[in-house]
Amino acid sequence: MKTISAIQQEKINASTLVAWTGQRITINGAVHKVRGFGGLQFIVIRDGQSMIQCKIEPGSVAISPEDYSEGNYISITGMCRKEPRAPHGAEIEVETVKVLSRPAAEMPFSVNQKLFEASIDTNLNFRPISLRHPRQRAIFAIQSAISMLFREGLGKIGFTEIHTPKLVFAGAEGGANVFRVEYFNKKLFLAQSPQFYKQMMVGVFGKVMEVGPVFRAEPHETSRHLNEYTSMDLEMGPIASFEDVMGVETYLLQYIFANLPAHCEEELKLLAVSVPQINKIPAIRLSEALEIISKKYKPEDRSDLDPRGEQLICQHFLKEAGTEFVFVTHYPTAKRPVYVMEDLENPEVTLSFDLLFRGLEVTTGGQRIHDYATQVEKMKRFGYNPNEFESYLQIHKYGMPPHGGLGLGLEQCNF
Amino acid sequence: MKTISAIQQEKINASTLVAWTGQRITINGAVHKVRGFGGLQFIVIRDGQSMIQCKIEPGSVAISPEDYSEGNYISITGMCRKEPRAPHGAEIEVETVKVLSRPAAEMPFSVNQKLFEASIDTNLNFRPISLRHPRQRAIFAIQSAISMLFREGLGKIGFTEIHTPKLVFAGAEGGANVFRVEYFNKKLFLAQSPQFYKQMMVGVFGKVMEVGPVFRAEPHETSRHLNEYTSMDLEMGPIASFEDVMGVETYLLQYIFANLPAHCEEELKLLAVSVPQINKIPAIRLSEALEIISKKYKPEDRSDLDPRGEQLICQHFLKEAGTEFVFVTHYPTAKRPVYVMEDLENPEVTLSFDLLFRGLEVTTGGQRIHDYATQVEKMKRFGYNPNEFESYLQIHKYGMPPHGGLGLGLEQCNF
Repeated sequence: MKTISAIQQEKINASTLVAWTGQRITINGAVHKVRGFGGLQFIVIRDGQSMIQCKIEPGSVAISPEDYSEGNYISITGMCRKEPRAPHGAEIEVETVKVLSRPAAEMPFSVNQKLFEASIDTNLNFRPISLRHPRQRAIFAIQSAISMLFREGLGKIGFTEIHTPKLVFAGAEGGANVFRVEYFNKKLFLAQSPQFYKQMMVGVFGKVMEVGPVFRAEPHETSRHLNEYTSMDLEMGPIASFEDVMGVETYLLQYIFANLPAHCEEELKLLAVSVPQINKIPAIRLSEALEIISKKYKPEDRSDLDPRGEQLICQHFLKEAGTEFVFVTHYPTAKRPVYVMEDLENPEVTLSFDLLFRGLEVTTGGQRIHDYATQVEKMKRFGYNPNEFESYLQIHKYGMPPHGGLGLGLEQCNF
Repeated sequence: MKTISAIQQEKINASTLVAWTGQRITINGAVHKVRGFGGLQFIVIRDGQSMIQCKIEPGSVAISPEDYSEGNYISITGMCRKEPRAPHGAEIEVETVKVLSRPAAEMPFSVNQKLFEASIDTNLNFRPISLRHPRQRAIFAIQSAISMLFREGLGKIGFTEIHTPKLVFAGAEGGANVFRVEYFNKKLFLAQSPQFYKQMMVGVFGKVMEVGPVFRAEPHETSRHLNEYTSMDLEMGPIASFEDVMGVETYLLQYIFANLPAHCEEELKLLAVSVPQINKIPAIRLSEALEIISKKYKPEDRSDLDPRGEQLICQHFLKEAGTEFVFVTHYPTAKRPVYVMEDLENPEVTLSFDLLFRGLEVTTGGQRIHDYATQVEKMKRFGYNPNEFESYLQIHKYGMPPHGGLGLGLEQCNF
């Protein structure tokens, strides 16, 4: 008898279930749904990734309906048979049911309907339970695959994963918007990004990446701001120009989208999501982008793209070039952090970029300053005291290659 | 001409370099070491992972020695030739040198000596630089591979990666030792572990894992305490017993150790580290372990293993069973957190375990309570107010399978 043990259990999908047909197997999971049909009882078991249909023939076995109440966790043993109408094309003919646990109360809502129908408040107040709905959990299964593919794709081109401190002395993006932590009798901050550390590690491993939490004390409540999120970061050197970083991002998005369906085919189908196709991503200077949208829209700040401007420029490229992605480059020096490299040909702008997708900024990146005197001068010009950044400036002082990188919010990857 | 671009550059090792022999290639990196020998000049380039030897024939090219000063980042173009005495069995005959960047100051210590010889204070004060020493960075290359193999090994048996919040309302291990964060006009805490969240996600994905930072306001300064570290966590259900969790850990350590040499052969060699071999890991009850050590040692606390006790029990198993690993099980109820399941046969002890390795505890794990009434009663008995844990208790209330898990500190994996 095949017992799918806690240790060896693979992801159950069409091919595994069909491979088990003709064998007696044991599976464990939650009773997702029970329904009767023509004298038969069907139990749908929800395991960690999938749904498995089980059938009770009338009178075939003495099983109490209480044992397979919705919400129970049970262990079912029976023969696995081909059944084209079942999920994965196979079902289990139940021989025995063993109850593993019973809930103490009735669910506050149903997680076995096709659509999740509770209000947003109920959904969030009962998040540990609402995430059990297949459509709710599908979002996080896809997210999980994206973060895994981010690291895998970069690993294939020589990136090393790093784990940087989150308790820090100074914020990387500037003084505001940092959370303060009481650290024994000192004050520390929560890292807004791994910026300084990933630059330091370029001198060690050349190409580095990290998927980890970042913290921003954003007073805004919009769909564009989060106080805590998972950031996917990379940093690399030596580079020839900031376009190398854009090249790596293009490769990386191609890698993720090409491999995502193999990891979450069911989830993508469930949410009716199609994965974007990328060949080449066009790039446009911010000044040119502002010129294009100026025909349709006059933003308050004429030197930057606001949310409406980002939507318009995406619409433009979708129409003109058939692409949902566009790089906007050369953001103003005054709008970018102190570590960003200025364009030698025009110090008013930086060697930086944003990646826009369907009207939303999904990445910020660029080349960083590697020269010591240049970084110290810019810190002073921006009102920072270089002495407070002594350990960061060690890399510039003792030698750094031309380098750059980017950050991509995992929660923004709602492709 | 083969130019190793920032995008396609693979990890350079013996096989890649030898495959390039007979071709003209360009490589970029730091000048690690320069030495003259019989009229020849040798430049050793340090790239992100490896060392590449380059040779300048006397009079062959007009290159200024200033261009290849130690600490410069340079781009070298030349023919790749077989050379058995070079690292990786090949070297580059330099044709041109292009300087990418120069340091602003002389290094505070050498990173190109065989051993790293600065004091511990200097090492830590100049950490961004000292990590460039091949032996220093090797430690973190191995650490990086371990965290990658942790996720990869678990992914192969159906675990889903999760990203849980680090800003939390309550600590999982008890009230003390948490860092407080000023969150707008509230007080939040930094998560001591992903315990509550990973349990919640067992109801969603069945088997879950996370590699991420945890924070402990430990007032102790010992080699056994860290205020911030990277925790490798897993949680799984349904399980038949807490021994399923020990089984997964055994599988996982076997997986990591079997695959580690392929990822960091050079680094393991450099540090002269041998990877432990694991077949089966013996398990012993704490009470029996205390009995064994009592012949040699009388600890202050007779109900637990202290550091000396852990060393003695490891010595015992190394001698008696030839194993460096041993599971110690059934720790006292009073010593384990409130979510740990008690042994029905003896409620004084829990269905929990530690994994000891070379005298050090490297994992704590066990089965958790899944029954609502049982968890509420234990919270009251331990002095907690169940109302403050309402969202956590949703999983017990609306149905959880028997489940368990473990946490493994990445920094403890100093095998």
